Amino acid sequence: MDKTSSFYSHEGKPIRCKAAICKKAGEPLVIEEIHVHPPQAYEVRIKIVCTTLCHTDLAFSKYDSGPLARFPRILGHEAVGLVESIGEHVDGFKHGDVVLPVFHPHCEECRDCKSSKGNWCTRFAEDLVSNTRRYGMASRFKDSMGEDIHHFFFVSSFSEYTIVDIAHLVKISPEIPVDRAVLLSCGVSTGIGAAWRTADIEEGSTVAVFGLGAVGLAVGEGARLRGAAQIIGIDINPDKFAIGKKFGFTDFVNPTLCGDKKISEVIKEIAGGGVDYSFECVGITSVLSEAFLSTRTGTGKTVALGINPAAPTELDSFGLFRGKHVCGSLFGGLKPKLDIPILVDRYLKKELNLDSFITHELKFEDINKAFDLLEKGKSLRCILWMDKK
Amino acid sequence: MDKTSSFYSHEGKPIRCKAAICKKAGEPLVIEEIHVHPPQAYEVRIKIVCTTLCHTDLAFSKYDSGPLARFPRILGHEAVGLVESIGEHVDGFKHGDVVLPVFHPHCEECRDCKSSKGNWCTRFAEDLVSNTRRYGMASRFKDSMGEDIHHFFFVSSFSEYTIVDIAHLVKISPEIPVDRAVLLSCGVSTGIGAAWRTADIEEGSTVAVFGLGAVGLAVGEGARLRGAAQIIGIDINPDKFAIGKKFGFTDFVNPTLCGDKKISEVIKEIAGGGVDYSFECVGITSVLSEAFLSTRTGTGKTVALGINPAAPTELDSFGLFRGKHVCGSLFGGLKPKLDIPILVDRYLKKELNLDSFITHELKFEDINKAFDLLEKGKSLRCILWMDKK
Repeated sequence: MDKTSSFYSHEGKPIRCKAAICKKAGEPLVIEEIHVHPPQAYEVRIKIVCTTLCHTDLAFSKYDSGPLARFPRILGHEAVGLVESIGEHVDGFKHGDVVLPVFHPHCEECRDCKSSKGNWCTRFAEDLVSNTRRYGMASRFKDSMGEDIHHFFFVSSFSEYTIVDIAHLVKISPEIPVDRAVLLSCGVSTGIGAAWRTADIEEGSTVAVFGLGAVGLAVGEGARLRGAAQIIGIDINPDKFAIGKKFGFTDFVNPTLCGDKKISEVIKEIAGGGVDYSFECVGITSVLSEAFLSTRTGTGKTVALGINPAAPTELDSFGLFRGKHVCGSLFGGLKPKLDIPILVDRYLKKELNLDSFITHELKFEDINKAFDLLEKGKSLRCILWMDKK
Repeated sequence: MDKTSSFYSHEGKPIRCKAAICKKAGEPLVIEEIHVHPPQAYEVRIKIVCTTLCHTDLAFSKYDSGPLARFPRILGHEAVGLVESIGEHVDGFKHGDVVLPVFHPHCEECRDCKSSKGNWCTRFAEDLVSNTRRYGMASRFKDSMGEDIHHFFFVSSFSEYTIVDIAHLVKISPEIPVDRAVLLSCGVSTGIGAAWRTADIEEGSTVAVFGLGAVGLAVGEGARLRGAAQIIGIDINPDKFAIGKKFGFTDFVNPTLCGDKKISEVIKEIAGGGVDYSFECVGITSVLSEAFLSTRTGTGKTVALGINPAAPTELDSFGLFRGKHVCGSLFGGLKPKLDIPILVDRYLKKELNLDSFITHELKFEDINKAFDLLEKGKSLRCILWMDKK
């Protein structure tokens, strides 16, 4: 069913479409017909062109407790869409615009959005639990029985149509292929942003990246574009090293082959005393501690991208005292509406390597295969095409 | 005995003078006559004009184990002196120069000293144990029995004469009164540097300082000079609040009066969601954790000045993940030879308040009284005059 021909026929009205629903923790997604409401004020309904999935989708498909574990739910937060319907008070978007939904809000009006520092939208970012940004638990999705389906991080892209608040929507150039643009919706932007905005890597720097998933590889790509002299990748999967070379990694460390040495000791040997910047992209507290130990005394900076919020971060106090830095980076410190168009531009100028992140393409109906590939470490990003048959 | 009249008479020869010797952990210092060797290559012998003491001296007078616990020893690391004798290969210093010894080295030649980032002298700073910078455990002090006396952090200012390596010596303008300049030798520079160099506080910022000793008060002074809008002091000693006002503190929190609330909660209420910058100047791990919690989500920066190296630093991972920063600051991130003259200049321009740090003056012979005042929290800085009778 190609809806492009009747693209505007449901404008402002409920629409029926297919979505992949996560009905219960740990179970495969089920593709069913759902109803998507028309957008309310400050909301836009978009037709998803393609979507991808990352480890956050995988993790949330399995969580079975806490306020963020909710079922049935439409997961998915990396996507490219076309604006189909527009609610009241929506400026800057028109029908047919190519848009990128982003889980991290950018209201453009609060003190922090207006500041040049950081990317924490004070107005919205604290609320991770609601279904819709301005309407609390109100859902815009109903199943065939008329029951609400939960949203996921204000995106829910595993659906032919979804509702996104304008604080979570970035208009992008139609020149970039959608299957490249989709990568900028979360993980790849996070990695590049961490290298550029959070760490602000200088030419000639030494860099260590712990964990070579899409985020870690994107950190390497960001470091490469900044002219880093040495980019060391650390991963227990040796297959990642060949991939890493495509993104500028110069050295690799496999922690399982370090023998009695700590990973940080090996990195200090490779980088002549410690790296200028280290990045933790795994989400394990002990890895963050090692990443911190790997940096250069006095000036080293560690960026935490994959933190486990449940455990406190433990750092070597002596190292800290001697001038090291550590900081977190949510969405790579990027302000979505300002920074994603910059990344698109760098791709269009043929500077930014996005192509190598795409390892698989599948039709939307095969979404559970995409989950399987990701879980087994076989894919970086698998493009899911909504309309491809 | 005033040696000024015969100031150069011992140039290049051993000299006899008085020093306050810490003979055993926890015992009062004993003033005795010692021999001070002539300076070797890259060393200068200086006549101390005045010295002060800080909590580091107090702590090291009591440590009785570990490689840094050594007796007999000449403590003291904040001082102003006059160059009396010059060893070989010493450029940039001449007889009679007014100089400030600094515990933290600045060789001006290593990669880090030449870099604009940080202040960690890779060449020298790692070694905190040696007596002399380039000669290992070789001491330049002997007691009346001809036995070596240990140095202290390459300064040992509780002596009428001491030997200092040129990597630890800063030439300063003779225009600044010596009893003001002496404050810049360690604690006050550390606090101002942390505000200016490490945190780089902007105009209109909000600041919280945990612990209002000389370092914490100097952070406030640095924040005041940067135009901070709100400077909150946290101390369990309410006497510190009147003193704090002299350095620009606008608000005070006494942790013993916070009831069931965490200090960070109180600070967040005062500062509208959290401060832009927090500084830990106490050296207690749990205080550092609170300082971290007190900062603004997304952009807050915590500077650790008083770390306990023995315990790991524990930070709230969720806060870190959301973009907060933490870093340490050794000697306030200042490069001594570059930055201390800038601080002297700001004092001479009547911008920097150094006067209010001086709470007591004593003659050198009364040094144990000065230790007592510091330990009881009655003094900020007590000037000890070497020649005053």
